[in-house]
Amino acid sequence: MRTINIGLIGAGYIGHSMALAYRAVGALFPDLPPVRLAMLADANEATAAKAAQRYGFAASTGDWRRLVTDKGVDVVAIATPNHLHCEMAVAALEAGKHVHCEKPLALDMDEARKMADAARRAGTRTIVGYNYLHNPMIRLAREIVARGEIGRLVHFRGFHEEDYMSDPALPFSWRCEREFAGAGALADLGSHIVSFADALAGPIAELSADIATVVPERPVAGGGRRKVENEDQGQFIARFASGATGAISASRVATGRKMGLAFELVGTEGAIAFDQERLNELRVYRAKEAAGARGFATILAGPEHPGYAAFCPAPGHQIGFTDLKTLEVAHFLSAICNGRAAEPDFATALRYEAVIDAALRSAESRRWVRVGG
Amino acid sequence: MRTINIGLIGAGYIGHSMALAYRAVGALFPDLPPVRLAMLADANEATAAKAAQRYGFAASTGDWRRLVTDKGVDVVAIATPNHLHCEMAVAALEAGKHVHCEKPLALDMDEARKMADAARRAGTRTIVGYNYLHNPMIRLAREIVARGEIGRLVHFRGFHEEDYMSDPALPFSWRCEREFAGAGALADLGSHIVSFADALAGPIAELSADIATVVPERPVAGGGRRKVENEDQGQFIARFASGATGAISASRVATGRKMGLAFELVGTEGAIAFDQERLNELRVYRAKEAAGARGFATILAGPEHPGYAAFCPAPGHQIGFTDLKTLEVAHFLSAICNGRAAEPDFATALRYEAVIDAALRSAESRRWVRVGG
Amino acid sequence: MRTINIGLIGAGYIGHSMALAYRAVGALFPDLPPVRLAMLADANEATAAKAAQRYGFAASTGDWRRLVTDKGVDVVAIATPNHLHCEMAVAALEAGKHVHCEKPLALDMDEARKMADAARRAGTRTIVGYNYLHNPMIRLAREIVARGEIGRLVHFRGFHEEDYMSDPALPFSWRCEREFAGAGALADLGSHIVSFADALAGPIAELSADIATVVPERPVAGGGRRKVENEDQGQFIARFASGATGAISASRVATGRKMGLAFELVGTEGAIAFDQERLNELRVYRAKEAAGARGFATILAGPEHPGYAAFCPAPGHQIGFTDLKTLEVAHFLSAICNGRAAEPDFATALRYEAVIDAALRSAESRRWVRVGG
Amino acid sequence: MRTINIGLIGAGYIGHSMALAYRAVGALFPDLPPVRLAMLADANEATAAKAAQRYGFAASTGDWRRLVTDKGVDVVAIATPNHLHCEMAVAALEAGKHVHCEKPLALDMDEARKMADAARRAGTRTIVGYNYLHNPMIRLAREIVARGEIGRLVHFRGFHEEDYMSDPALPFSWRCEREFAGAGALADLGSHIVSFADALAGPIAELSADIATVVPERPVAGGGRRKVENEDQGQFIARFASGATGAISASRVATGRKMGLAFELVGTEGAIAFDQERLNELRVYRAKEAAGARGFATILAGPEHPGYAAFCPAPGHQIGFTDLKTLEVAHFLSAICNGRAAEPDFATALRYEAVIDAALRSAESRRWVRVGG
Repeated sequence: MRTINIGLIGAGYIGHSMALAYRAVGALFPDLPPVRLAMLADANEATAAKAAQRYGFAASTGDWRRLVTDKGVDVVAIATPNHLHCEMAVAALEAGKHVHCEKPLALDMDEARKMADAARRAGTRTIVGYNYLHNPMIRLAREIVARGEIGRLVHFRGFHEEDYMSDPALPFSWRCEREFAGAGALADLGSHIVSFADALAGPIAELSADIATVVPERPVAGGGRRKVENEDQGQFIARFASGATGAISASRVATGRKMGLAFELVGTEGAIAFDQERLNELRVYRAKEAAGARGFATILAGPEHPGYAAFCPAPGHQIGFTDLKTLEVAHFLSAICNGRAAEPDFATALRYEAVIDAALRSAESRRWVRVGG
Repeated sequence: MRTINIGLIGAGYIGHSMALAYRAVGALFPDLPPVRLAMLADANEATAAKAAQRYGFAASTGDWRRLVTDKGVDVVAIATPNHLHCEMAVAALEAGKHVHCEKPLALDMDEARKMADAARRAGTRTIVGYNYLHNPMIRLAREIVARGEIGRLVHFRGFHEEDYMSDPALPFSWRCEREFAGAGALADLGSHIVSFADALAGPIAELSADIATVVPERPVAGGGRRKVENEDQGQFIARFASGATGAISASRVATGRKMGLAFELVGTEGAIAFDQERLNELRVYRAKEAAGARGFATILAGPEHPGYAAFCPAPGHQIGFTDLKTLEVAHFLSAICNGRAAEPDFATALRYEAVIDAALRSAESRRWVRVGG
Repeated sequence: MRTINIGLIGAGYIGHSMALAYRAVGALFPDLPPVRLAMLADANEATAAKAAQRYGFAASTGDWRRLVTDKGVDVVAIATPNHLHCEMAVAALEAGKHVHCEKPLALDMDEARKMADAARRAGTRTIVGYNYLHNPMIRLAREIVARGEIGRLVHFRGFHEEDYMSDPALPFSWRCEREFAGAGALADLGSHIVSFADALAGPIAELSADIATVVPERPVAGGGRRKVENEDQGQFIARFASGATGAISASRVATGRKMGLAFELVGTEGAIAFDQERLNELRVYRAKEAAGARGFATILAGPEHPGYAAFCPAPGHQIGFTDLKTLEVAHFLSAICNGRAAEPDFATALRYEAVIDAALRSAESRRWVRVGG
Repeated sequence: MRTINIGLIGAGYIGHSMALAYRAVGALFPDLPPVRLAMLADANEATAAKAAQRYGFAASTGDWRRLVTDKGVDVVAIATPNHLHCEMAVAALEAGKHVHCEKPLALDMDEARKMADAARRAGTRTIVGYNYLHNPMIRLAREIVARGEIGRLVHFRGFHEEDYMSDPALPFSWRCEREFAGAGALADLGSHIVSFADALAGPIAELSADIATVVPERPVAGGGRRKVENEDQGQFIARFASGATGAISASRVATGRKMGLAFELVGTEGAIAFDQERLNELRVYRAKEAAGARGFATILAGPEHPGYAAFCPAPGHQIGFTDLKTLEVAHFLSAICNGRAAEPDFATALRYEAVIDAALRSAESRRWVRVGG
């Protein structure tokens, strides 16, 4: 198998997570093509050099354009703030690279469509960093649904709630600015729960939404306060294309919630429940079991679930956040190697974006709106 | 203290529950006025006589009108199907009785307003059977909110989901008919979670709703199928009068859920979570606790919480469903005795009805609607 | 069916609980013989009279001997401190009464044997107040074991831990005195978990125990401190007659535990877990389920479980502590009515006492001892 | 900082885990000295070569003696079956290496003492692979205890139960042989819970134990059955040097348990509970909190807990099994770098071995025995 050469743009929180994953994947998945950490770019050249040494990249640069056109790079991994995704991804695709872009795909639908178009034209593989989808327990959930074990789907109730901006004393940041972050909680967190909804219950067709900026102003370094430009929380009721109903919330001010990415999926013959704060557990109810013995079974992740065995041959030993990113990378490498679409690629992530976009439009118009309409 | 004489109409499931509560309350709350089980009415005279003997009522009748005008009756407890509440309650109020009416208050807003008007005119005490509000843990939650311990309220997410009609083979019943039940899941279950929302976060001002009849037809005894006339599930997003946002669902086809009456209430300085399937627990998060030591605390019901000590002097021993009804009755007797409004009285329950009514209107118009508008 | 006349001795905490249960049972179990609350005795005649009125007993007395020989009494219910059980129970049995005695059976093995002998001679029905055994979830657990669903039993790990004496500032009480309480945590709490062990896994054959008095002295009203005469906690490892192993603990100083009566029962083909702090749940694991789908199922109590339906026709609505006592009384009345042994009768409870006795002997000798040896 | 050169012996399950950890540590902990993967040894030379390539070791060998004496190796990591630990570790120590040995330390006390002696003579750093001790939540638990937040320690109840040999059809393996594994469940699993007990509550002074081989014979490849030579489960009651009591169990046939390494630690003013199946949670009870608000708080691992931030800057995102091994390696490298004893070093692990040895002796003699006696 040919070695796959990785170029990573961005040395922040997500860059760290991606770098760890690309570093680790080879030892964990020896059947995948070998990976070479070719180049790391960061706006700050010294930061890039330091990060390259830390993670073991062969080269570094302060100019991301050099990276995306470098012949020694096969995959461009984009771990920059949201407003940079579009330009970088399109450039990389036009240079014929496979692209691994952190979520959310883009600032708005215009950008997202541009990216999906570029991906289609390039014909290379793309993936967007919805790493929670690669959890063995989520894959198990999808298999259970696909096998019809919970019957016809009736309802999806889900949320992604954290409290990282709950404290009103927290300073204004790029996350509060439309120009750099796009939407607020809906884009940052809501897109994750939308990715679950889409993967488990299919596309969302229409919705009615509401948003709120709970902390309207935040302190600025150096004194004074600045208006927060996007929503702290959002929620919507929805209809899936299948006719199933949904209720979805996102919040970055949900005091007490640290990683509250949770759902309950109801079918006519069973139900599935999940909470990312216990990501190694899936709770499954099957109505067919004998009366008096029925109940939600708590299934613990183990080597029989897709992806887990790479980390540990024994069940119940738990995988973690960084392992999910490694599973995402393994899935992407496999897609590249086999010439199959990765999941979620830009086209699929565009669907998620369209839901967030519809939610924002609905919140503004205070009407039901069609997704993509 | 003067003895309070109880007349009970209805010998079904809810009549059973009310009869047990009125039987038990005297021994559990010796400081309340003594209770005498005066008369039990049921449309079927023989059923009434048998039930009277079972529960220890002094008399029985097949004619509820005789009961509501009987001079030996102080309190009329109404445990009949929804479509009978209005006529019976108004008659009882006009006869000067205190009225204990099972929830939901009425079939529709017209009836509910008539009942609230009659109550105001009568000047007697009324209460509607939202027994879950009398749970010591819910009272504790209200105290925590009232003391400002979780700060300004930001969001209420709640649902009441059961699966008692999940199986499509279950026969058509009066619960499926508008004439006898009014609305479906929203009236039967949604009103409970609305009562929690109102009690904890104040009145709901406006909402956008969706409803669905998941099992559109059900088998009829003797063959054939009949169209289900009301919703199997409903959900809405809402704004409270306070400005806080809300997301509320109800379902009678939530496979796997037996008594899923649950909420999470978020404030700027903390949060409260509750699930009726573990009704003796309240989970509370306080942001002020030291970093590294913060987390949701699971508080177990004990004698330090209002009402619990009547059942057991030791904490953690658990109260049950029938005890909640007894707490409701104790609260009502205390209100009668002290001349104070019980909670929720007809006026308050009218607010809950208005929310359900608004949800149905919104689902039909597919617009945001004002509650009571 | 002939009415069964109840005489109750003791108007304290347990007397309250028993009175509530005998009051409630008729309305809940209409197929059982009717109950009449005939007489209530308490050492303090005024207390007896007041309690009789509160609970609806027809008569009261300050002299328990009058009650146990009264011809109008069929059942003598003993709710007095431990040191009085033997004398009262033997007198009642000699007077031909059925006897309902609060747990633990007696102060020591001598007394317990005397009581079991008297019961055998009398030929009437006896029961000891291990009310937690009558939980529908415990009955379900026993059925699961009896049907062989978890295979051959391998291990029982259980404890009953509370913290009611955890605070060293709590005053000395009769519970600390050998003369009135007998043993400490092992008798008061350990006997409950032993009753579970015996009911689920059969008799315990031998054990090795350790005990500790964590708070050696406690304050006395009026000043000074007094030596605590029995154990605050005890634990033992055990062999069941079946060969299965066990590990059992009891503590009244288990800070944080309010009603920690919990066990995990392991078989070759499954396991059962239970915690009284969530008494409406039973967790069951079946090894035979498909790989990748196995997990502990949380079964919620419902009308399909023995006894639950009397309280509520809908599942998941929860029964409580007082309901367990009512189920105990219903079971006893049924035994009386059908002439079958109740469970646990004096003979069975003698086995529990023998385990506690063996634990105390083992802790003293620091050797393995045979139960009953 | 000088680069630390790693030599790893063993390419099985634990070798995999160690290799991943040494590979990952540099990128996660940039402040530690850089690590170079110098050499990998395995009895099978081809296996060694393949594994070296997979994990990125510079060299490989089929002769572990070559590795332990290689001048280019600073740390010898031993990931071989138990019976090989002693010879390899002593050889490495005599060659002046730091030694990272997988748990349990050795087959028996003779070997364990030899190893601890060799470590003392060598004066290099040692660590034994009790990776669960390096969980941020366990470190938090230790801090809580050390700060006196739960008062004087009263009781430790813990177990490590898995079901990896629960199925009687599972074939005989080296784990069933005394010659290669030493003891059974007590050595393999019991040593983990003993490490927790020791770290949290101090040394165990004496104990009374019982063991059982639940599946006495297992099938052998090629037909027939072979006698299992060590215990499937063991349990003991104990006294800590501090006077606190303990109850500890281990089982490899605990049907349903996958990673049941759990404890409850009780103090006079609070309690701590933990279960490795939810390794990112610590449950803490503080008796001092206000009556009516007290309860076990579930603390989620986050960047404020020692070690977590290397993996993720956001709380609640979960670390996993492989991360715990990386934390162990980071701790060891730090100890090497700073010249401080790592934890648990051979001397400390010898204490754990002494407890297991005492348990085996007690089970045989059926007496209380002193640890180390």
